[in-house]
Amino acid sequence: MRGDQSATRTAGIIIIGNEILSGKVQDSNSFFLASGLRALGVSVMRISVIPDDVDAIGREAAWFAERFDYVFTSGGVGPTHDDVTMEGIAKGFGVRLTRHPALEARFRLRYGDSPNAAVLKMAEVPEGTEIIDLGNTRFPLVSFRNIFIFPGIPRYLREKFSLIKERFRCSPLLLKKFFLNAEETEIAETLNTIVRDNADVAFGSYPVLENPEYRIVVTLESRSEDSLQRAGEDFLRRIPTEAVVKIV
Amino acid sequence: MRGDQSATRTAGIIIIGNEILSGKVQDSNSFFLASGLRALGVSVMRISVIPDDVDAIGREAAWFAERFDYVFTSGGVGPTHDDVTMEGIAKGFGVRLTRHPALEARFRLRYGDSPNAAVLKMAEVPEGTEIIDLGNTRFPLVSFRNIFIFPGIPRYLREKFSLIKERFRCSPLLLKKFFLNAEETEIAETLNTIVRDNADVAFGSYPVLENPEYRIVVTLESRSEDSLQRAGEDFLRRIPTEAVVKIV
Repeated sequence: MRGDQSATRTAGIIIIGNEILSGKVQDSNSFFLASGLRALGVSVMRISVIPDDVDAIGREAAWFAERFDYVFTSGGVGPTHDDVTMEGIAKGFGVRLTRHPALEARFRLRYGDSPNAAVLKMAEVPEGTEIIDLGNTRFPLVSFRNIFIFPGIPRYLREKFSLIKERFRCSPLLLKKFFLNAEETEIAETLNTIVRDNADVAFGSYPVLENPEYRIVVTLESRSEDSLQRAGEDFLRRIPTEAVVKIV
Repeated sequence: MRGDQSATRTAGIIIIGNEILSGKVQDSNSFFLASGLRALGVSVMRISVIPDDVDAIGREAAWFAERFDYVFTSGGVGPTHDDVTMEGIAKGFGVRLTRHPALEARFRLRYGDSPNAAVLKMAEVPEGTEIIDLGNTRFPLVSFRNIFIFPGIPRYLREKFSLIKERFRCSPLLLKKFFLNAEETEIAETLNTIVRDNADVAFGSYPVLENPEYRIVVTLESRSEDSLQRAGEDFLRRIPTEAVVKIV
């Protein structure tokens, strides 16, 4: 399945886990997903890190699902007491938690004919859940409406995302970067003018410390190649030539 | 100023910046703040990453400020068009944006007597903003009610946080970690029982891949040393001795 390359799509990412909020573990999943989605043309609108809490997960999932085309969750899908993502999503959408036959069959295959209660807990999903068989991973991917439910372990999340990502591909986001040897305060006024004159280009300005060659990176982004080109030329005309270190 | 070490405090972190959502830059500020706050005893309840958007910033800041003792924002305080944190917070609380005399004086000192509009923009803050002079940093820290407004550049954020952090110190959170050579599915049921019996201890269970010695880390946290001790002993009694690799 391949996405529609003329469409524009939005996404939200929900990272579930007390270990991230308490600073015991540094989250890398949101960066992986954000850059991966961007490369597919999807605009990530929000990332939330929330605790292993049924109500918090339910509220967040429902809120995201209503606002964004796709929602990606990470974490809270294992066998222990603090894995409450499925319960949270079920609560947030007011549906029951049910044991999914395909998941149960898979766990029985893996853990033997009499899996314990903790194993069977992992087969319980919100009613209406779809199972996306990815072939070569030990667990299938689980989705509920527009929510894709990923494990928190980075290796598993990456593996699953790579297998499914093409379905999210949409109209590409084009990017141009200007590396400048100038202070932000020197170019800010120029930038303000250009931003006003180029409505379908998104501009970003980022100071860089401790680089001997440049001190700011200005980014221009658009889904239109023409607009990006025009805005880039406009920008170049208005800043001192000697400030431009490189353009990529 | 030093915090009250018998109190418990909560915090929320708001990371502002399109560059994080688009995966161009990996955020490290939320991890720095989360672990730093945790070390001071503060419980971080939520982290949001939101775009450089006045309304989004306003809504998020007001929502966080109402729910948590402290709010930390990062990003959006520079001189360019995409730096709209101050405007966002002003809008969220329905106050005016005003030029702060102490900030203006500082910028005139730094940029000369006729600073341009972009420089003066950085002196505009929500009405009621407090300036916390940190002495040895180029910019003071700005706070509005219970919101502490940090720059997005990690070096500046860290510098400022280190200078101010003691005021947030509260009742310490104690942590015990059990490194186990077992599968999560084997200990999940035991863990569920212990969790029920030890209400004032928070338990976490985290699978570890590719470590030759252990496969799970179980964490126990509490503000009570006695409770932590009791729960730790309870846990040890119920798991196979040979599974315990180390306890820290």
